[in-house]
Amino acid sequence: MDLLNVVQGLSKKTDSKIVMVVLDGVGGLPLERGGDTELAAAKTPNLDALAVDSQLGLVELVGAGITPGSGPGHLSLFGYDPLNYVVGRGALSAVGIGVKLNAGDVAVRGNFATLGAGRTVEDRRAGRPSDEKNAEIVARLRAAIPDIDGTPVEIYTESEHRFVVVFRAGREPLGANISDVDPQVTGETPRLAVAGDPASQKTANLINAFVERAEQTLAGEPQVNGVLFRGYSDVPHFPSFSDVYKLNAACIAAYPMYKGLASLVGMTVLEVDSVEDAPEGKLAALRAHWDEYDFFYFHVKKTDSTGEDGNFAAKVGKIEAFDALLPELLALRPDVLCIVGDHSTPSKLASHSWHPVPVLIHAEHSRRDQASRFTEEEAGRGSLGLRRGTDLMPLLMANALKLNKYGA
Amino acid sequence: MDLLNVVQGLSKKTDSKIVMVVLDGVGGLPLERGGDTELAAAKTPNLDALAVDSQLGLVELVGAGITPGSGPGHLSLFGYDPLNYVVGRGALSAVGIGVKLNAGDVAVRGNFATLGAGRTVEDRRAGRPSDEKNAEIVARLRAAIPDIDGTPVEIYTESEHRFVVVFRAGREPLGANISDVDPQVTGETPRLAVAGDPASQKTANLINAFVERAEQTLAGEPQVNGVLFRGYSDVPHFPSFSDVYKLNAACIAAYPMYKGLASLVGMTVLEVDSVEDAPEGKLAALRAHWDEYDFFYFHVKKTDSTGEDGNFAAKVGKIEAFDALLPELLALRPDVLCIVGDHSTPSKLASHSWHPVPVLIHAEHSRRDQASRFTEEEAGRGSLGLRRGTDLMPLLMANALKLNKYGA
Repeated sequence: MDLLNVVQGLSKKTDSKIVMVVLDGVGGLPLERGGDTELAAAKTPNLDALAVDSQLGLVELVGAGITPGSGPGHLSLFGYDPLNYVVGRGALSAVGIGVKLNAGDVAVRGNFATLGAGRTVEDRRAGRPSDEKNAEIVARLRAAIPDIDGTPVEIYTESEHRFVVVFRAGREPLGANISDVDPQVTGETPRLAVAGDPASQKTANLINAFVERAEQTLAGEPQVNGVLFRGYSDVPHFPSFSDVYKLNAACIAAYPMYKGLASLVGMTVLEVDSVEDAPEGKLAALRAHWDEYDFFYFHVKKTDSTGEDGNFAAKVGKIEAFDALLPELLALRPDVLCIVGDHSTPSKLASHSWHPVPVLIHAEHSRRDQASRFTEEEAGRGSLGLRRGTDLMPLLMANALKLNKYGA
Repeated sequence: MDLLNVVQGLSKKTDSKIVMVVLDGVGGLPLERGGDTELAAAKTPNLDALAVDSQLGLVELVGAGITPGSGPGHLSLFGYDPLNYVVGRGALSAVGIGVKLNAGDVAVRGNFATLGAGRTVEDRRAGRPSDEKNAEIVARLRAAIPDIDGTPVEIYTESEHRFVVVFRAGREPLGANISDVDPQVTGETPRLAVAGDPASQKTANLINAFVERAEQTLAGEPQVNGVLFRGYSDVPHFPSFSDVYKLNAACIAAYPMYKGLASLVGMTVLEVDSVEDAPEGKLAALRAHWDEYDFFYFHVKKTDSTGEDGNFAAKVGKIEAFDALLPELLALRPDVLCIVGDHSTPSKLASHSWHPVPVLIHAEHSRRDQASRFTEEEAGRGSLGLRRGTDLMPLLMANALKLNKYGA
């Protein structure tokens, strides 16, 4: 049985406040065997002092050896098993560029393609156009296809050959069980979208009409003259944070993807003045809304971006920047403070990785470890043990005294 | 959701090579409280040096407190949850004596029994005959029952009162849903085999005919004059190693049981010149086939056999013998090297046991622990934590950079 359902039956509203800080991609590796990880190399006097008075452990967000994408990593942190709660490709793309989806809408991932004689696909990525070209094409399509037979159509640039289309539902929800237009190989024509159930018939018609009108609009283009679709998603229906945890939860993040994920689980997304992910604006938002919410998801992106760039020193710097901010966060006196990542992003690999992520829980009623620092190594010896990411929310709820006893 | 299915969706072919060394039954216990286990008592300079540069942990192959048989222990190591992927008793017996089963065949575990007046069972194990007597009886039955109505019948000695019958399927597969002939108590007659579904009717007829003809053949025997059957199995269909992991996998083992298990999951079983399980021939096979495969299952049996004999010193010796071989294995420079057991076999208990098994992963991108030796105690502090055996393959695949990211 899903622990989420158990927690939902036990959770209660109290005045205590939980702050979950997600240092995106914080887990790392040493560049040289025997060396320091980014966390170990960073000078973090405030995290060190906190670690002495906290409980540590490691979390695996999806499963052993599995490298989490940002979506599954965050869902796990929020208590939703990412193997059971899946955000479709289209919906994740929409969420990633900050498009709000409503119940009944369908989001679709599209590729621009090059079509040759007889509509055969010559290049499934249209020669990878520039982002500027992409935006130019999207603007033409927006003007040409504002709606199809009264159904509003929204078209968004993603990058290069990628774009997203959102079909807005009217009174009837749109189904998303539709076959791919993308033939997945060159030399064949785009396929007709076919509905897999009656509820998706209207959507299939919309897709086929879109393909036809897009080709008409782009007929004069030498390269970007066709569209291919695969990955149709309706809006995922997750039990909301307020239903499961009885929490009034707020998201403090700068990037659309994370705001979108938080919004999917029912958090209120706060306005944040945070150019380039600078933490000062986020801290200001936390202070300004401190009294209104009892759960804050506080996201720091740059620990991941620097890791993805393979820039060890820069990632160390972003960890140190967070450390400098920590006293002001602690000054708000959250009842439960958790510091964790949604996955590891070792600079050495310059990508997300499967390595378990260190986690720290600081709370009045938690046990303490003998740790002296917040590092992968100390976390590996921590008494929280090695856990699934979905264990975290129940632990935070318990430490906030927000869970009733299970059974008599 | 089964992690195996997730891994299947993420695995990719690469050039990196994985070696999984299974030191059968390697986990142990001290003879006296506070003393050394076999691993701790062994002088293992090479394993010690490797442990310093590796990540350690403990694996539980089936579940807490569950003592694994060799079949479930190995299936778990190979990533197949032994609670979901079951090799029937008959098939495991056949595999254990090196009999190859084909799709549609049925393997059956039999006991010789002593029947008295009116065919009532007097001894369900026929007084536990010697292995020689067993072989003599099997030879008589083979001569008397080469086939039944055209279905080929193969009869194999197992040990004492135990034997195995394989019915070879013709064009139609044989079903294995049949009631037991063994009444499980003395004083009753052997029961008629009854088919549980139409596909098993022919097999039930074969079983009943076999029982009748065996009793005719053995009518003059004072003790071994009847046969009882339970445990009918068709051939288990597991997703193959190449489907799940995209691995071209080879088995290097000397004993039939392990070759059979490897073959069941689709590994190529290499010819090994290894009298009495001597490791030199196995190492030669590994060297000879190094370029052809990207996964090697390397099995060492005698660590278990000596444990089963309750011979602590001999088990220590077998561990030291493997240690002496280790530098040559490392000289091949596998990208990922894993050393583990399929269960513990403490000499003190002279049997398999439930104790978690130490595991070591040595790989370029793994984290490291502060371990100085490969022992149960050091492994218990390792940052791989205490894990299910089925976690191991995903971890090895991840460390070999053979798994794509899960979700965006």
